Amino acid sequence: MDFRKYLAELIGTFWLTFGGCGAAVVSAAFPHVGIGLLGVAFAFGLTVLTMAFAVGHISGGHFNPAVTFGLTAGGRFPASQVIPYVIAQVLGAIAASALLYFIASGAPGFDLAGGFAANGYDAHSPGHYNLVSAFTAETVLTAVFLFVIMGSTHPDAGTGFAPIAIGLCLTLIHLISIPITNTSVNPARSTGPALIVGGWALEQLWLFWAAPLIGGIVGAILYRIVRPAPTIRI
Amino acid sequence: MDFRKYLAELIGTFWLTFGGCGAAVVSAAFPHVGIGLLGVAFAFGLTVLTMAFAVGHISGGHFNPAVTFGLTAGGRFPASQVIPYVIAQVLGAIAASALLYFIASGAPGFDLAGGFAANGYDAHSPGHYNLVSAFTAETVLTAVFLFVIMGSTHPDAGTGFAPIAIGLCLTLIHLISIPITNTSVNPARSTGPALIVGGWALEQLWLFWAAPLIGGIVGAILYRIVRPAPTIRI
Amino acid sequence: MDFRKYLAELIGTFWLTFGGCGAAVVSAAFPHVGIGLLGVAFAFGLTVLTMAFAVGHISGGHFNPAVTFGLTAGGRFPASQVIPYVIAQVLGAIAASALLYFIASGAPGFDLAGGFAANGYDAHSPGHYNLVSAFTAETVLTAVFLFVIMGSTHPDAGTGFAPIAIGLCLTLIHLISIPITNTSVNPARSTGPALIVGGWALEQLWLFWAAPLIGGIVGAILYRIVRPAPTIRI
Amino acid sequence: MDFRKYLAELIGTFWLTFGGCGAAVVSAAFPHVGIGLLGVAFAFGLTVLTMAFAVGHISGGHFNPAVTFGLTAGGRFPASQVIPYVIAQVLGAIAASALLYFIASGAPGFDLAGGFAANGYDAHSPGHYNLVSAFTAETVLTAVFLFVIMGSTHPDAGTGFAPIAIGLCLTLIHLISIPITNTSVNPARSTGPALIVGGWALEQLWLFWAAPLIGGIVGAILYRIVRPAPTIRI
Repeated sequence: MDFRKYLAELIGTFWLTFGGCGAAVVSAAFPHVGIGLLGVAFAFGLTVLTMAFAVGHISGGHFNPAVTFGLTAGGRFPASQVIPYVIAQVLGAIAASALLYFIASGAPGFDLAGGFAANGYDAHSPGHYNLVSAFTAETVLTAVFLFVIMGSTHPDAGTGFAPIAIGLCLTLIHLISIPITNTSVNPARSTGPALIVGGWALEQLWLFWAAPLIGGIVGAILYRIVRPAPTIRI
Repeated sequence: MDFRKYLAELIGTFWLTFGGCGAAVVSAAFPHVGIGLLGVAFAFGLTVLTMAFAVGHISGGHFNPAVTFGLTAGGRFPASQVIPYVIAQVLGAIAASALLYFIASGAPGFDLAGGFAANGYDAHSPGHYNLVSAFTAETVLTAVFLFVIMGSTHPDAGTGFAPIAIGLCLTLIHLISIPITNTSVNPARSTGPALIVGGWALEQLWLFWAAPLIGGIVGAILYRIVRPAPTIRI
Repeated sequence: MDFRKYLAELIGTFWLTFGGCGAAVVSAAFPHVGIGLLGVAFAFGLTVLTMAFAVGHISGGHFNPAVTFGLTAGGRFPASQVIPYVIAQVLGAIAASALLYFIASGAPGFDLAGGFAANGYDAHSPGHYNLVSAFTAETVLTAVFLFVIMGSTHPDAGTGFAPIAIGLCLTLIHLISIPITNTSVNPARSTGPALIVGGWALEQLWLFWAAPLIGGIVGAILYRIVRPAPTIRI
Repeated sequence: MDFRKYLAELIGTFWLTFGGCGAAVVSAAFPHVGIGLLGVAFAFGLTVLTMAFAVGHISGGHFNPAVTFGLTAGGRFPASQVIPYVIAQVLGAIAASALLYFIASGAPGFDLAGGFAANGYDAHSPGHYNLVSAFTAETVLTAVFLFVIMGSTHPDAGTGFAPIAIGLCLTLIHLISIPITNTSVNPARSTGPALIVGGWALEQLWLFWAAPLIGGIVGAILYRIVRPAPTIRI
C-alpha cells in the first residue's frame, strides 16, 4: 500500500525535524552542560539512523526531498512517486516544528529570536557566512550525502549497514556546516522552522530548496559515473 | 526458565539506571572536563545498546515498563508476562539507585539537593519546563521510541542491528529532552532515584509512569498502522 | 601458534593503554577545545573496538587481565593460558606508558604531577572519592563489563557485533567513573602509568588489581546463572 | 575500469580532507557551542566510515597514501597501482582544501593565521610538541592504523564491519594526537592545507609524508607477523 510508504516518510521526517531541531532549540546552549553543536550533529544523524532502521524497509527511508530527487536522478526511485513523497516529508516537518514550538514555549524565557533552528545565510548564518559560501556548502554537502547514500545502499556494500553510514554522514555534515547555514541539506527540515519563524527565514528558504536539490541530483549522477550499473530500488 | 528472563530484565534495568544516572550524578558537571548532557545522553543509550547485545536473546531486552507495555500492545509480547517483567525492572532500578547513592556519597560535598538525576517538571525541570510541555515531550518521545523498537526488530530490518538502533534512539531522546524533564521515557528508571530523593520527586513520579506508558502504547499501535503484519516475539 | 596470540594481546593492550591514557594526558584538558572526560571515554572504548576487530579472531581480544580471569571463570577460556596472557597484557601496558611518557615529555610544561592518567582513590581520586566507593565502583563496573562480554559473544547474540558492544561498554564505564578512580577495570592498564608515576600510584595499585579481578569473576559467574549452557571459546 | 577506482579514491580523499579540516576550521572553536577537538576527531573518522561504505567495494577505500603503501607492504595491494592511487588522493585533498578556503573565506574575520588545519610541529604544533615527539607519534599512530586496517579487513574478522573499525580508529587517533601535530597519519590530507597556507606548513610537510609512510609500512608488516597467511585484495 502506497499510503503506508507516505506515512512512513511523514513520520521519519517528523522525527528528523523534531529530534534535530529539538536538540538544537532545547539542549544546545543549555547553561554549563549544554550539548553544543556536537550534540546537535549527533541528534540529526541519529534521527536518520534510527528511522532508517525502523522504516527503511517500508519506504526506503528518504525523509528528505533532496534524497528523493537524487535517488530518482540516480535511477533508484520511480519519478511517479516523487511528489507524494515530498508532500509527506514536508507535512511531517511542519508537524514537528509546530509540536516543538508547543513544547519549547513551555519554558520561561523561550523566544523565537533565538532562531528556532531555522536555516539562514548572511546576517542569519550563525557565523555570518555570505550567500555564496552558504549556497556552495549546501550544494557540495548534499552532493556527497547522495553519493554516500547511493554507494552504501549498493548491494556490494554489505547488507544492513546503510542506516549507520547514512545517519553518521548526516552527523558529519552538521559537524562541518552548522556555523555556515545551521545546516539544511534537506528542504523539508528547513521549511518547518521557517514557517514558524516567518520573515527572514521564509525569505531565505529558497536557498535551502535550490541548493540541496541541485546538490542531491549532482551527487547521485556522480555516483553513477563511478559505478554505472543501475539497479532499481524503492 | 522464566526466572532467567526476569533476572536478565532486572540486571539490564539495573545497568540502565546505574549507568545513565551514574554518569549524570558523577560526571556530568565535573569541573572543567565534565561530560555534560551529551555524555549523559551517550551513557543512557549505551546502557541499552550493551545490555541488548548481552541479554536481548534471553529476555528481549526491554529494561523499561513502557517498552513491555508497548510491545504487548503491538502484539509482540504476551500479556501474561507483563507484571513479572515490570516488577523485575523496578527492582533493578531501585537496586541501582541505592548502589549509586552508596558510591556517590563517598565523595566530599555530595548532596541530594543536586537532584540525583530524578525526573521532574516545573520547578524541578532542569530548564523549568511546565507540566504540559513535560507530559507532551515524555509521551511523544516514548511513542517514537516504541515505533523505532517495533520497526528495527522487524525481520525485514536486517539481523542484529536492533541494539544499535534502539540504544542510539535512547541517546537521541536524551539529547532532545534532558532540559525538559531530565528525560525518563522509562517509569522504572524514574522510580529508582525518586525513592532516594523523596518529597517532590515522589510527588511528580506519576507523570513518569503515565506519559511513557501512554506514549509507548500509542507508538507501538502507530507502527502497526504502518506495518500491519503481526509477528509474536519474546 | 600461541606466540601469535600473546603478541596480539600485547599489541592490543599496548593500544588500549597508549590510546586511552594518551587521550587523557594529551587532549583531555587542552585549552578551550579539549576533549574532556567524554573524549577520554570514547578513546578507551575505541581502543577495544578497533583492536577487537583487528585481532579478536586471533587471541579473543581480551587486552585485560580481568577479562582473562573472568572468561576463565565463565568457562570460556582455558586456565592454562591465563598466565601468559596476563604477562603479555602487562608488558604491552608498560610499553605503552613508556612511549606515552617519551612523547608527552616533548611538550613544554609537561609534568607528572598531572597524574599521567594513573588510577587512584581518596586524595588521588579525581573527585576525591574514598576507598570504599572506589573499590565498590571498580568491582561492580568490571562485573557488568564481563557480563556484557559473556553475553555479547554468545552465539545467540548475532555475529560480528561483539567488538561494538564491548568497546562501547568500556566507553560507558568511563562515562560513569572517571571522577571516581580515573577508571581502571583493567589491572594492566593501571600498572603501566603507576610504574611511571611511582609513589602513591604504586601504593594504590593493589586496588586496581583486586577489585577488577573480583568483579570480573563475579560478572562472568552471574552470566552463567542467567544463561547456563557453557561453550568453550578461545 | 581503473579510472573508476582512481575517481573513487579522489572523491574519498576529497571528503576526508574537506570534512575533517572543514570541521576543524569552521566549527571547532565556534563561540560557546563549538565542537572542539572531540568533534573534529569524529569528523575525520566519519569521513572514512562513510566513504568506505560508499566506495570501499570499488577502490578498497584507502583515501591515504600511507594506507596504499602499507597495504602494498602487507601483500594486500598491487605495487603497480600505488602511483595512480597516490596521485588521485593528493588531487582530491588539494581540491578539498581549495574549496574549503573558498567557503571559509566567506565569513567575516576568516584568517589563514588560524592555521587552516595544517599539520605542524614545534612552534606550529597546537601544543608546541617538538619534532621528535611529532615524528614518533605520527609513526606509531599510522602503524597501529595499518595494523587495524589489515586485521579488520581479514576474512576472519566478520563481514561488513571494517568501515566502522577503520573510521573509528581514525577518530581515536585524532583524540590522542591533535594537540601534538593537528594529526595527519595521511600525507594527502597534510598536503592540501599546506599548499594553501604555504611557508612553515610547506617546510614542515616532509614529516607528514615520511612518518606516516614509515609507520604504515611497519604496521602492515607487524600484522603479517601476527597473522602470516597472505591474501591479495584490491
